[in-house]
Parts: sequence; structure tokens; C-alpha cells
Amino acid sequence: MKFGGTSVANIERIKNVADIIKNKKKDNSKLVVVVSAMAGVTNDLVQKSKSISKNFSNEEYDVLLSSGEQVTSALLSACLIEKNIQARSMLAWQIPIVTEGQHKNSRILSLNSKAILNYLDMNYVVVIPGFQGISEKMRVSTIGRGGSDASAVALAKALDADRCEIYTDVEGIFTTNPEICDKAKKIEKISYDEILEMSSLGAKVMQSSSVQKAMMNDIEIFVKSTFSPEKSGTQILSEDRISYNQVITGVASSNDDAKITLIGVKDKPGVASAIFKPLNDQNIIVDMIVQNISADSKKTDVTFTVKRDDMDKTKKMLENLKKDIGYDNLLTDNKVAKVSIVGAGMITHPGVAYKMFNALSLKKINILVISTSEIRISVLVNDSNVELAVKTLHSAFELD
Amino acid sequence: MKFGGTSVANIERIKNVADIIKNKKKDNSKLVVVVSAMAGVTNDLVQKSKSISKNFSNEEYDVLLSSGEQVTSALLSACLIEKNIQARSMLAWQIPIVTEGQHKNSRILSLNSKAILNYLDMNYVVVIPGFQGISEKMRVSTIGRGGSDASAVALAKALDADRCEIYTDVEGIFTTNPEICDKAKKIEKISYDEILEMSSLGAKVMQSSSVQKAMMNDIEIFVKSTFSPEKSGTQILSEDRISYNQVITGVASSNDDAKITLIGVKDKPGVASAIFKPLNDQNIIVDMIVQNISADSKKTDVTFTVKRDDMDKTKKMLENLKKDIGYDNLLTDNKVAKVSIVGAGMITHPGVAYKMFNALSLKKINILVISTSEIRISVLVNDSNVELAVKTLHSAFELD
Repeated sequence: MKFGGTSVANIERIKNVADIIKNKKKDNSKLVVVVSAMAGVTNDLVQKSKSISKNFSNEEYDVLLSSGEQVTSALLSACLIEKNIQARSMLAWQIPIVTEGQHKNSRILSLNSKAILNYLDMNYVVVIPGFQGISEKMRVSTIGRGGSDASAVALAKALDADRCEIYTDVEGIFTTNPEICDKAKKIEKISYDEILEMSSLGAKVMQSSSVQKAMMNDIEIFVKSTFSPEKSGTQILSEDRISYNQVITGVASSNDDAKITLIGVKDKPGVASAIFKPLNDQNIIVDMIVQNISADSKKTDVTFTVKRDDMDKTKKMLENLKKDIGYDNLLTDNKVAKVSIVGAGMITHPGVAYKMFNALSLKKINILVISTSEIRISVLVNDSNVELAVKTLHSAFELD
Repeated sequence: MKFGGTSVANIERIKNVADIIKNKKKDNSKLVVVVSAMAGVTNDLVQKSKSISKNFSNEEYDVLLSSGEQVTSALLSACLIEKNIQARSMLAWQIPIVTEGQHKNSRILSLNSKAILNYLDMNYVVVIPGFQGISEKMRVSTIGRGGSDASAVALAKALDADRCEIYTDVEGIFTTNPEICDKAKKIEKISYDEILEMSSLGAKVMQSSSVQKAMMNDIEIFVKSTFSPEKSGTQILSEDRISYNQVITGVASSNDDAKITLIGVKDKPGVASAIFKPLNDQNIIVDMIVQNISADSKKTDVTFTVKRDDMDKTKKMLENLKKDIGYDNLLTDNKVAKVSIVGAGMITHPGVAYKMFNALSLKKINILVISTSEIRISVLVNDSNVELAVKTLHSAFELD
């Protein structure tokens, strides 16, 4: 059972989490609980680090931030003990959870389940601070923001858990953002692939690399609400165990995109690499890419999208590289947004793309860029059209 | 170098501490720094624990509270690195600092200096969170409030340090409380014994058990101000290295005492034990004790003092034990205060007690109870007389 920051935001909520665990413990389940830092704590610590230095030591950053989850694990353990449940916190170094890679963004390498199993056998609830590990050099490490999901999945795998429950502040995963479309419905079952597409499109329920790890190890995940734990939530499992009666599972949208177009790029081998390698080197994530091959000249136009925050940086870089790349003009537009339909069902149903484009065209929504994967079709539109596009597609694919 | 909670209360002060260390590092000293939690943090965590349970698990309490010092150690280390000083935090489990005894109140049993020396040799400043250790069962332990002093002294001993500097928010140890008597002067040198007597009397500069440990290992301590580090502060060292030109070193006072008198106690063997054992069992600290033997009857009066906060609890306990102890009446008075003179010089100077009592009597200050040690004389007075008594004695013993 993993509880995120809003689920343990204050003492009352920690008591509520202890009640959920106590209730779950009634059937004598062996329970391992992973907790995040109390909401706000991590941001406060990050703020402190920024007041010290813009280049705050990565090693010390991990020592600093890991304290947040440590506090929650102690508070929750004591709260369980207060409710007559045997419990104890187990910090990363006590297990140990060994990580590899760089500080601030490590990956779990190995996890010694022996000590945990020992306490589970003695009927303890073991409470583990998420997000933290220790490096091979015996220093405190952390596994990136949202890393408590990764801790939960790694523990579920190492302990061969029957299930992994992710408790959050929503009732599960929805067919689309309820704030945009009031006809959004909770999804009962969704595949790993679909949730990965949804997450990368802005439906932030679980960290993507954790879903991937769950998929690779076939760990069934239940996304549930901390505030309505009795409700079924959403089950994430492999595609072949879901019977699809709908072509599309959900509609996702993001509104932090920016479009960049290079006009008159010389159409020669290696030009794409010349454009995108420097962006990659600067950790700028490029999303949709379209290249129009021009029949009549040796020149082409290349359009791609980046996060809106990265637009100015990207523009500057490409302007500096104008000679190396070779292009005539550079256009940018930060008033764009991406709308996507996601569904494993579309693999076996032809005509999905046509249906999507037709529905949008009937509402006079202009499509700027298109990109597709096996189970997803995304279009870039003017950001003033996002709400209408989401509602139109939600209705057109009978998700209302 | 040990920095207490007020010295690291916020980011600006942590930067100030980093400057003090940087300055000290100029002569290429090998430095180990012990830090407390930022002022307010520990109280906040204690408050959280109380909101969970009055009987908050001791083991989890240590996990909870130790996070405070961990945060400071990371912030200070990163701040040093920012100032181009090689530095790293080293948590209790990374050294390790092994403790014995119960949680919340452990003692340092052993300390592996190898890892620390290794980093000192590489010219690192090693920053260690005070107050924390690990138990022999590999759980987080803490060494009682004010425990950062104990960490500093234990480290000074284990590392065979040349000196141990305790940085605090005052310029050193004063002849008396400057808030009570504006003629208070900073003491240049004071013996371990004297500071122990002063501390237990309310002059809270350093934790007493840490002074004892420093005394046993002859570790010279320098109490200095974080805010005026250039000033000499007060040196604490062994008595035989101080030449006393004054009989009395300081005047101390406390105003959180309460007096309890049992009238008509049967004068028989074991009666003192019947009174004080139950108090001891409840961790009620009894300070001054006076028993007047009555010549004419088989009964006696017993008077003693406790902390004011403990008075009601003590009264209730003794009333419940009235039959077992056997006494006629119980009187309490919480408007009392203790005033003491302390000085190793009094061993070789007779008549100090007379001089004290006479000075007080000239000011018509009534003495309720007297208690003495080899280097201290304490009297209990009405708390309205504290200020006058302190000023009178400070002047009478030529400390002005």
C-alpha cells in the first residue's frame, strides 16, 4: 500500500491512513506500506536548498529531502502502534534498498527483502519511507520526484506481493480530466500501455517508469482513493486480461506545449540529428515531430513540439546553430495544446483516426500536427480549442 | 565545533556558521562540526508526536526527531561546498555512532572514528548531526534533549581533538544571569565542577552529562558566541589549571521550584525511602531536602523541593500514600526560588557560608532551606526576593 503526499498531508490524514491499514489488516494480510513526505514538506526543503545555492550539492540534496519521508514513516508507524497494530518504520539503510546512478535521480538496483519478511512473519506492518535508498558508496540517495511509486513497485516485486495499491487523492483513473469534461467516468480496468500513454499525456496518477516496471514484472496495481477506500478504484493490468467493449479508453489533453517550425531546412542525411541532438544534450524533451518532404526543391520544413517552459531556451539554441543546421527561418507558437485519444481497442478497430479527425472538423477545430502510436492518436490544436476538442472526442467515442 | 539550534535557526544563520567554519579552516585545521536541529524544528516534531499519541512509540520518536539534525547537516554541508570548502554530512548510521540504553535517552557506547578520520585526511570538513545514534539493534536512537553537546564531546574524545568549541547564542558563561543583574561579567575560565553546579542551577549553557564526560576525559571546552566568534568566550577546564583570585565564581538562580513539607512524619528507619522512592519511580527530581529532628517527640518534619511543574503530581502521590508513609499534614509552596553561590575557591576560604547568610539577612531576605556541596551553597527564598538576593550576593562577593 502506497500513500502519496496529499494522503498524509497532516496528522488527521495520517490517522485516516492508519484506519485504512487497520481495516485491511483484519483479514490478516501481510502489509508493507510505502509513504511519501507530507504534502508541502518536500517543496519546503527544496526551497531551503535553493536559498543556500543554485548548485546545491546533489549528495546533500538527497540527505535533505529523504528526511521528509522519514518523518511520515515514523508518524504513521507510531499511529498504527497507538491503534494496537504492531508496526515499525524501516529506513532505506536498514533494509537496505541499494540504488545505482546519479544522486537526485537514482534507480533501485537491489532490495534485501530478508529483514522485511522477518517482520512480516512476526505480523508487523512494515512502514517504509518511499523515494529513498542508499548508494553503493553508502550515501543517502533518492529516486527522483514521484519516486515513492517506484519504491512501492520495487517492493511489490521483491516481496512477490499479491497486489500493489496506490492510494491517492482521486478515486481512480478517469476517461478524461473531470475538470474539463463533466461527463468523465472512472475507468474500472486499464492496461499498462494505456496508462503509460495517458500519463505521458498529462493524466498524472502514477510515475511512468513505475508503471513500466510493474508491466515488466506483471504486478497488478490498484489505484484507489485515500478518502473513499471502500470504492473499487482503477485496476492496472496487462492488456490481454481486459476485454475491450470500447474502441477508446480515454481522452487526454495537455496545455503546456509549444510548437517550433524550421522553414527551409536542407533535405540531406543527418539534418534531423543536427537539430535534435543538441536539444537532447540539454535535456529538452521533444514530443511530436513532423517533417514535410518537399517534392520540388531540396528543402523541407520540420515542425516539433517541446514543453512550453523550454521554448525560449530551444529557440535560442537553434538560432545559435543556424549555420550548422542550415535553415531559412524559425517560427514558434506557444498557444498550442495536445489532445489525444488512447485505447488498446483501436488496434483491432480500423477507421479510428478518420472518426477522430472528422469529429474535430465538424466542430471547425483545425489540426496543426498529428502523431500516432499503436494505441494512441494525438493532435496539436490551438489551445483555445482544448476544452471543445476533449468534449467532442469524449462524446464521439461514446465515453459520456 | 558544535552549533546549537539558535545558531542554525534559519538559512542566513547557517550561512553565517559556514563563514565561521571557513575562517577557522584558514589555518588548515581538521574540523568536525556537530549541528543541532534548526530552532523550532524539534519542538514542531514533538508537537506532531503528541498529536498522534501521548504514548508515542519511543523507537519511532527517535526516527522522527533525528530528522531535524539530518536536515541541518545537509544544509550546512552544501553551504560549505558552495563556499568552496570540501565538506560532507555523515549520519550516525554511516559512522556508526552506536548507543546503549533506552530509546529517547540513549548513551553513546562507541564511535567508529575511521570513516571520519579518512575524510579529515582528505581535507573534508565532516558535518555530523548531533543528538542521534543507532542502537545495537540497528534502530535510530537519540541521546536526550541537548544531546548534541554529548555528540560533540564524544567525538572530541574519539578523535583525540585538540579542542571542543561549543557555539551558542551567548558570549560565554557569566558570573550571573545578565537579565537579573546588569553587573554580570563574562567568566574567562571556569572549572568542570563549577560549570556543573552552575548548569544544574539554571545557567543552561551546556548539558551536564556532556560536561561530566569532558571532565572525565580532560577535554578542554570553549563556549563561544556564534554571533561574535572573534571574542574569546569562556574556557572550561580542570580546576587545577585555574588560579583563583576570587572566592566565588558565580551566582546562579532558578525560579521554577516548589517546596513541599510533610509535618509530623514518624521518625523511624525507612521513612525517607517511603517518601522518595515513589517520586523517583515517577521520574520526579527532588532537589533540596531538609529533615528537622524533633527532640521531644517521635515525629519530625521533612521539607524538600521539586520542579514547580511536578508539584501537583507530587502532592497527589504523597496524599495517596499518606497511610503508608504516616504523617499528619502536607504543606506546599510554589512561590519559592533557589539562589546559589558557586566557586571552587570556597574550599580554601572558610566563612563563605556566614558571609552569604549575613549579606542576605542585612537585606531582610528570609532563608527557607539551605543545602550545600563542596563548591556550592544554595538557599531557598521567596521568589519575590530572587533579584535582590542575586544582586546582593554578586556584590558581596565582589563580582560586580
